[in-house]
Amino acid sequence: MPIKSRIRTVPHYPKQGIMFRDITTLLKDPVGLRVTIHEMVHRYTGVKIDKVAGIESRGFILGAPLAYVLGVGFVPIRKRGKLPAETIGHDYELEYGTDRVEIHTDAIEQGERVLLVDDLIATGGTAEAAATLITNIGGEIIECVFVVDLPDLGGRKRLEKKGYKVFSLCEFEGE
Amino acid sequence: MPIKSRIRTVPHYPKQGIMFRDITTLLKDPVGLRVTIHEMVHRYTGVKIDKVAGIESRGFILGAPLAYVLGVGFVPIRKRGKLPAETIGHDYELEYGTDRVEIHTDAIEQGERVLLVDDLIATGGTAEAAATLITNIGGEIIECVFVVDLPDLGGRKRLEKKGYKVFSLCEFEGE
Repeated sequence: MPIKSRIRTVPHYPKQGIMFRDITTLLKDPVGLRVTIHEMVHRYTGVKIDKVAGIESRGFILGAPLAYVLGVGFVPIRKRGKLPAETIGHDYELEYGTDRVEIHTDAIEQGERVLLVDDLIATGGTAEAAATLITNIGGEIIECVFVVDLPDLGGRKRLEKKGYKVFSLCEFEGE
Repeated sequence: MPIKSRIRTVPHYPKQGIMFRDITTLLKDPVGLRVTIHEMVHRYTGVKIDKVAGIESRGFILGAPLAYVLGVGFVPIRKRGKLPAETIGHDYELEYGTDRVEIHTDAIEQGERVLLVDDLIATGGTAEAAATLITNIGGEIIECVFVVDLPDLGGRKRLEKKGYKVFSLCEFEGE
């Protein structure tokens, strides 16, 4: 599988026991970048979409070319305090403590159909918070799309339970 | 000018007296996103380029579609500790203290021709550090490209003094 084989696994990053799935090796390869974007574009060609939202910061690398090729606008979902104009935020639980994602309140119009993009889904906490933000400002999530799914961590099931559709280009077992 | 008119100015962000030039209003607009990428693509069509490097994180939003359309790989330049594999870093001065950018040591091959992309050039400190990293791992900077130049802050001249070519899609006076 050309996408999966170009993803590098870095053992014990960011901490002992975690196998980090690193998409930089996929993206630095011209064929890897092209095939990744093409596979996403192929899935959404003919689907009515108004905006692509990417989650900071690897989601920006995938979401922006996808928005460009689909001919729609791109919206960044960022960590706390990074967006300059009026925002709404959503806190979510981490293993230790909480984190927060934010979006500009004028990023999405009422009723717009939004594709949510990130590089990887693990527990799904960030993606669920991002999807909540989009819904709260009036957007409709068409699907959540990832390059990598780690199904053992349950993120896909968590999003599906909330009623969101999920699509990934490949899966890795374990953490 | 269609690009400049779609950029929002947020006064006093991130602190009193700064006029923040916010490209999110440009990017959420399908025509704005398309024209921005097209203007960059137009400049580099027919130029031999091997990689596009984007500076975290707004540089990712511009650099990734540009790499995709030019048919080359994309390389992220990130803040301290964000890249999982072997990196080199470069520290640079801020108004108060220092900051650091890093790149994977295997991101660029010896002699590759690299286009460096970010949303905005102000004093040029981050861009100069990023260009130094690319040069240090054997890349050749073809040009540094920005959506916005703030010429009063001197970043363009600073980069040009170091021998780098600079191109921007628009300029704003003052900070």
